[in-house]
Amino acid sequence: MKALVLESKNHIQLRDIEIEEELGPNDVRVAVRTVGICGSDIHFYKHGAIGPFKLTEPMVLGHEASGQVVAVGEKVTHLKPGDRVCMEPGIPPEGSRALRAGIYNLDPHCTFWATPPTHGALRYELNHPAAFTYKLPDNVSFEEGALVEPLSVGMHAVTKAKIVPGDVAVVIGAGPIGIVTALCALAGGCSQIIISDVQQPKLDRAATLGPITPVNTSKENLKKKVDEVTSGWGADIVFECSGSAEESARAFDYLRPNGVLVHVGIPMKPVTHEVIDAMVKEARIEHVFRYAHVWPRVLSLMETGRLNATSLITDRFDFDHAVDAFDFASEMPSTSVKVQINLAS
Amino acid sequence: MKALVLESKNHIQLRDIEIEEELGPNDVRVAVRTVGICGSDIHFYKHGAIGPFKLTEPMVLGHEASGQVVAVGEKVTHLKPGDRVCMEPGIPPEGSRALRAGIYNLDPHCTFWATPPTHGALRYELNHPAAFTYKLPDNVSFEEGALVEPLSVGMHAVTKAKIVPGDVAVVIGAGPIGIVTALCALAGGCSQIIISDVQQPKLDRAATLGPITPVNTSKENLKKKVDEVTSGWGADIVFECSGSAEESARAFDYLRPNGVLVHVGIPMKPVTHEVIDAMVKEARIEHVFRYAHVWPRVLSLMETGRLNATSLITDRFDFDHAVDAFDFASEMPSTSVKVQINLAS
Amino acid sequence: MKALVLESKNHIQLRDIEIEEELGPNDVRVAVRTVGICGSDIHFYKHGAIGPFKLTEPMVLGHEASGQVVAVGEKVTHLKPGDRVCMEPGIPPEGSRALRAGIYNLDPHCTFWATPPTHGALRYELNHPAAFTYKLPDNVSFEEGALVEPLSVGMHAVTKAKIVPGDVAVVIGAGPIGIVTALCALAGGCSQIIISDVQQPKLDRAATLGPITPVNTSKENLKKKVDEVTSGWGADIVFECSGSAEESARAFDYLRPNGVLVHVGIPMKPVTHEVIDAMVKEARIEHVFRYAHVWPRVLSLMETGRLNATSLITDRFDFDHAVDAFDFASEMPSTSVKVQINLAS
Amino acid sequence: MKALVLESKNHIQLRDIEIEEELGPNDVRVAVRTVGICGSDIHFYKHGAIGPFKLTEPMVLGHEASGQVVAVGEKVTHLKPGDRVCMEPGIPPEGSRALRAGIYNLDPHCTFWATPPTHGALRYELNHPAAFTYKLPDNVSFEEGALVEPLSVGMHAVTKAKIVPGDVAVVIGAGPIGIVTALCALAGGCSQIIISDVQQPKLDRAATLGPITPVNTSKENLKKKVDEVTSGWGADIVFECSGSAEESARAFDYLRPNGVLVHVGIPMKPVTHEVIDAMVKEARIEHVFRYAHVWPRVLSLMETGRLNATSLITDRFDFDHAVDAFDFASEMPSTSVKVQINLAS
Repeated sequence: MKALVLESKNHIQLRDIEIEEELGPNDVRVAVRTVGICGSDIHFYKHGAIGPFKLTEPMVLGHEASGQVVAVGEKVTHLKPGDRVCMEPGIPPEGSRALRAGIYNLDPHCTFWATPPTHGALRYELNHPAAFTYKLPDNVSFEEGALVEPLSVGMHAVTKAKIVPGDVAVVIGAGPIGIVTALCALAGGCSQIIISDVQQPKLDRAATLGPITPVNTSKENLKKKVDEVTSGWGADIVFECSGSAEESARAFDYLRPNGVLVHVGIPMKPVTHEVIDAMVKEARIEHVFRYAHVWPRVLSLMETGRLNATSLITDRFDFDHAVDAFDFASEMPSTSVKVQINLAS
Repeated sequence: MKALVLESKNHIQLRDIEIEEELGPNDVRVAVRTVGICGSDIHFYKHGAIGPFKLTEPMVLGHEASGQVVAVGEKVTHLKPGDRVCMEPGIPPEGSRALRAGIYNLDPHCTFWATPPTHGALRYELNHPAAFTYKLPDNVSFEEGALVEPLSVGMHAVTKAKIVPGDVAVVIGAGPIGIVTALCALAGGCSQIIISDVQQPKLDRAATLGPITPVNTSKENLKKKVDEVTSGWGADIVFECSGSAEESARAFDYLRPNGVLVHVGIPMKPVTHEVIDAMVKEARIEHVFRYAHVWPRVLSLMETGRLNATSLITDRFDFDHAVDAFDFASEMPSTSVKVQINLAS
Repeated sequence: MKALVLESKNHIQLRDIEIEEELGPNDVRVAVRTVGICGSDIHFYKHGAIGPFKLTEPMVLGHEASGQVVAVGEKVTHLKPGDRVCMEPGIPPEGSRALRAGIYNLDPHCTFWATPPTHGALRYELNHPAAFTYKLPDNVSFEEGALVEPLSVGMHAVTKAKIVPGDVAVVIGAGPIGIVTALCALAGGCSQIIISDVQQPKLDRAATLGPITPVNTSKENLKKKVDEVTSGWGADIVFECSGSAEESARAFDYLRPNGVLVHVGIPMKPVTHEVIDAMVKEARIEHVFRYAHVWPRVLSLMETGRLNATSLITDRFDFDHAVDAFDFASEMPSTSVKVQINLAS
Repeated sequence: MKALVLESKNHIQLRDIEIEEELGPNDVRVAVRTVGICGSDIHFYKHGAIGPFKLTEPMVLGHEASGQVVAVGEKVTHLKPGDRVCMEPGIPPEGSRALRAGIYNLDPHCTFWATPPTHGALRYELNHPAAFTYKLPDNVSFEEGALVEPLSVGMHAVTKAKIVPGDVAVVIGAGPIGIVTALCALAGGCSQIIISDVQQPKLDRAATLGPITPVNTSKENLKKKVDEVTSGWGADIVFECSGSAEESARAFDYLRPNGVLVHVGIPMKPVTHEVIDAMVKEARIEHVFRYAHVWPRVLSLMETGRLNATSLITDRFDFDHAVDAFDFASEMPSTSVKVQINLAS
């Protein structure tokens, strides 16, 4: 079967690869239709590793995928061949304590597509547990279905924040994760977003997507804007989506008393901060790791138009040009947000 | 000062009344501009009492009000003459334990406009504590400002529900309270609403306001519709807005395991239900009494267009026709939602 | 294998019964050591049914059990032969949505010991899923291990209440469930309990178990006592453990503003109450159905002496006199709390 | 009036000082009876400042106080002369937004005893708002009453943690704050505490106070102990009470998935940590600043014996030796916990 294979650091190619998969009684077989490229895909491509996860043998890339069911295991009841679906890429082990506790994403033995040694989704077909495969509403396309994964990252962060309707949120970082988080925060009850970045094109795009006020921190003062919008009380929530250690350290400046900071972006460097800044406000800090229980919620909000992220798909490639897609995404202009690869039906 | 005075049961008139009011250091004086008529105003008009609150001497009606600041007490800093405002009608006593606990609405010694013996807002001017007076955003009109009170009822109910984004809610009753609750639930993160009533015009109107599915329970089965929408799992939330004891008793049928029922409508009769129905689902039940801390949230969501209820203002009267307005509202056709009275500027 | 079999309504006997059980890879085989008798066992004995659960063929009774592991399935790692254990009697089906959501007890397809058609624990040996089998701490006896089930009912109710340390709770009903709930509420952070009943011996016993104030409602006024203890503010929590529809209806009288009522007892009759009583206090109501995730918590609190319920074991029978035990428990004097049956080692 | 006055850095003396105080209608006048010495008192004594709070003129020290009411303002109803009381030292300004929100401790304009420029409690008499003055139960002595302040710090931290009964907590640091936090965590529902420090006498004392396992991190591995107690799952809660930046950074190692870290100790240096360590566990972090709404809770738990901290009073001085008390406390041996000063009755 043809697949986009990461052979080694800096070396990907489209080639046949044999993947042995048995269709278990609770699995479905899916013909893949659209796969988005995520920053982590690019990171594996360019560095061959993310933290402790190191490539040791060739691995198929891609974990933002939609497709069409072609076969179902004998015990599967809620899906049937022909169903249009998207698939959650992280799977907890059977009998997991974390699963039973309702936090399956936190089981350290989860497998996750395109995280060594687990193959990803950039191939024609794959097997997947039916319990982690979700039917697309009729008005959600395959391309939109492949957006559910990044949207779920934002939605999980939003769920952790426990928005009270009318909250004002600051989103630090207007990259793909910042933008999906802003959209999810609005869908989740925020009245408005203040988004910050240093790249003006990203801010300009964000400002078109709803009541989202852009602040270019290379020339504007974010705290001043927050105070202006909140009459000096501070924002209810700060979503840190930049992964910048410096921005993380400043986040408490923007919070109101008892506000919440959610770490969504992964800082590559250690963060140094004054704990007293968080203490005088009794700030709550939440951390997210992927997502749990949010895929059906994202789909439901997309179905009714409460969450619309289609405009984030800025660049499309067909499967034969998958390598080009990765090279483009590696040097993505700040006018682009999401690059997707469409497989022929 | 001219005011709409409830003289006794079934007897209202527009007449001069003397109300002694001193502008305290933390008060503002407001020229009233728009006042909406609420079901409770009508109830006092027609019955002279609601539960323990009985009219014993003439009282000015009205508690859904907006206006313009004409003077401010010496300690007031966040408002100034000329500011366009709306006013929260319930005021807790000074030094209230409930206030300190963050639940000022639950102090049994709160005063509330147009609840005996406290005069309401249907008069040219009034004094009000600045802490319970909120500036209208520039794009929110006086008429919309007078909608903040009923919207706050819905928003408080929504806040109690603790929506997780993407929740599906059932709203029982498509009257004014049902509709504002539905709108607030969508603004607060629900993906869709299933609303039930027996009056088709109310349902027809509700269906135009967003992803709101109407169910006429005089001919359709609500549980069947809920099961259809939620694949048999049940709704995350039921907002009981009908005040019907029979509907309240059935609410658990629509809930998912661990779902929440919020009582918004006030049942005039005792409710009889099988507790076991709630137990097998470990249902949570919340009750609301007016609102607390939600006015600024409603205004913020109106300012950014996340909550738009303007179309609910179906009937307008000027102050000289205030008695007509009350008589119209007493026999309100099911095509009407909110009747408002505008005072000259 | 010898077992205590409910043959039909009012007819139990100790006799051999063949139960086919295969030791699955994730199961353990347990030699049963102590089994407590619960009100529901007696109800099945005397009525042959509880609600929709009707006896249609002979069934082994008992669901409060401890024992010793004699064999383990090939995938079991946390238990080994010789381990002293207690067993959670309700098991969700594989692949359960409720399980994944962290609320496995609410899956309507759970099996539960001694609820038709599932055999109970009053037999020499049984197989059980290892994931629902918990090792007893060294200082917890088999008899105490068999108390974990009823204590878990109380602890689950307490967990739902979300105690804030120092809360004052009212427990309505001083039967076995009321007493375990009171003990769990103290272990869970309450400062004191006010317990009510009409049987003086039950109240007298309760008063010996900690800061528990007894109120005999046949001659004392419960609301007056609550007001006295709470300076008129009301109790933070009411645990309804009597199953009385009348007591349930009165529960809001005892609550403080924003207090919580937890339904633990199952009212046999429908409950009729004035919703407005709950509204003016914005009461929260929680319902419990068995328990989830609390067994290890109960064991941990028993291990460190924070929860000590040993004195509740008032009557012991050996297995040969199991029928006598049931007949005794059926007419249990108010001086007894828990009847247990010990099987020979 | 005689008072213990901090004249300047390193200079305290017992001398007459004139403090003008008017007994407002909502105030009480209290004859001070016992005052404990806190680390912050010592810090002001030795350094003349804590962070932004700098001594600019002579100030009375002490903020852990109990006493007896000698007069009450005209509107005070819940206290009368002769009542034995303790007093919460932080007072929010009138009309505070934070007060209305239920978080009065977070108002940046709070006054606080013995924090410049506000005089403290080490004097014969003082006026205090009745709303922040609490009656001592009959079985709570003046000395114990003066412990309510430090206990409230621990209890507020415990309340923020939202203990689920049976939780296992790690307390880092066995100084006064660590010990009160451990006691409060047990009273609040934890089953056991693992406490760490490098001073063996502190650990030895802690181990006598309940199910508290001491770990001397100068020679034992804390993570290993946590894994042993929790079967490798991790602790539910970590209370950081050492104020050590290094310990704070390591706290996530001890947490279970979805566990919570509460910062109680104030790190004097910035804390540097890897955010990813918190992300993979989706840790929640809470911060506390003094306390709010917990004093009555602490008193209630003391009254019923659920919280007993009397043994923490290790050293007593009379008022005439107040300077000696401060000098002793400045060089406090690790066998001491709390130094108190008793004023003559």
